[in-house]
Amino acid sequence: MTTTTPTLLEICIDSYDSAVAAIRGGANRLELCAALSEGGLTPTVGLLREVRKLIDDVRPVHLYAMIRCRRGSDFCFSDPELAIMVTDLRLLAEHGADGFVFGALTEQAEIHREHCRLIAEEALRLGKPVTFHRAFDCTAVDTMGENLRLVGSLGFTTILTSGFESTAVRGLENIQRLAELAKDLEFLRLMQGIFFSRPDAGLFMRRPDRLPRKGEQAVCLWEVAQRMEKVCSCVMR
Amino acid sequence: MTTTTPTLLEICIDSYDSAVAAIRGGANRLELCAALSEGGLTPTVGLLREVRKLIDDVRPVHLYAMIRCRRGSDFCFSDPELAIMVTDLRLLAEHGADGFVFGALTEQAEIHREHCRLIAEEALRLGKPVTFHRAFDCTAVDTMGENLRLVGSLGFTTILTSGFESTAVRGLENIQRLAELAKDLEFLRLMQGIFFSRPDAGLFMRRPDRLPRKGEQAVCLWEVAQRMEKVCSCVMR
Repeated sequence: MTTTTPTLLEICIDSYDSAVAAIRGGANRLELCAALSEGGLTPTVGLLREVRKLIDDVRPVHLYAMIRCRRGSDFCFSDPELAIMVTDLRLLAEHGADGFVFGALTEQAEIHREHCRLIAEEALRLGKPVTFHRAFDCTAVDTMGENLRLVGSLGFTTILTSGFESTAVRGLENIQRLAELAKDLEFLRLMQGIFFSRPDAGLFMRRPDRLPRKGEQAVCLWEVAQRMEKVCSCVMR
Repeated sequence: MTTTTPTLLEICIDSYDSAVAAIRGGANRLELCAALSEGGLTPTVGLLREVRKLIDDVRPVHLYAMIRCRRGSDFCFSDPELAIMVTDLRLLAEHGADGFVFGALTEQAEIHREHCRLIAEEALRLGKPVTFHRAFDCTAVDTMGENLRLVGSLGFTTILTSGFESTAVRGLENIQRLAELAKDLEFLRLMQGIFFSRPDAGLFMRRPDRLPRKGEQAVCLWEVAQRMEKVCSCVMR
């Protein structure tokens, strides 16, 4: 464990105003979504383009786009839904996305190899890294080691997890186990999400050593867009 | 009032499966959105393209796309938000949208002339009609006559309203007043929405004469996507 690795602050946003607030608040990366109330859906090209312009005018911030074509917690997609997401991924890449966020499961809540490979290969073909999102936390805890390796082998560069719990603070023990299992996987990075509340975010930013680190540390603040100004001032204190 | 004019059944959907169900259920027009839980946001190009293919394979159904870049009930947009929506409108038109649905208000909850004109002109320039959505129901009831004329003069061809109430059944009296005021406005059509519940939808479809008619009658079923199969069987009975 080292405390000198820089912390990457990724903030999820679903509106232009939230993007402005997140950038002011110190975000290094934006996860661009629509409808955070639904856990984040694919954003439109229009939103991506305007946020891209904003970033280019202010300071370099990475812009990752969620690829998720509908609400629901199953993460099971049909063939037409895969086609929808491939189209959106290509268009978003063309209009300035730096990377993508995706996850697909089988009906048995296992990692869906074919769907994940399809999206990851499409992203990588366009030169864009892709993060596996918190669908990871819907898989069986006792398969975390093999799933970690599987997700890496499918082409994902990062896993976003809150340790199989609703918040990273609650899932701390599992995140620590995951970090231990991931430490030899040089291609894969763990991101610890999910903070719903200001106190949790504040706690983490004051005591970053409480969470395990591996390479560049990433923090993801979710569903805080509406109160971003306050959260960021809390985070940056 | 005539009972022989055909009823146009427009159904709002926010997923591919809902589109399939709505088309099976007899929809003549789809209002394509993302996140109906947020009242409907701009859909992605990917979703539009796949639904377009589905329609072209099955039977002609008009495909209107919502233009709304974020959640909220204010309908007040900033300049960057207008730019987001113009970009999305153009892309969606290019990829097969037949028309659009939009509404913008001032901070005083009056129709925003400049923003509405900008979007309507952009749509009309591309040869696509545009409906003013239920932001209309956020304006003052006692200005309904002048707002009706204003919306028509700004280029909108249809107003979607539930008579300043949460459902068209509740807002019936106001819809009747609007229909009376609109009867000389040949360029403008009223659509009666909003049915949240199966009983309301069933009631209307059994007694369509309960709602006033002007030209082609339009019915809009909102927020029923999740249970569309059931609603449609109810509607078609």
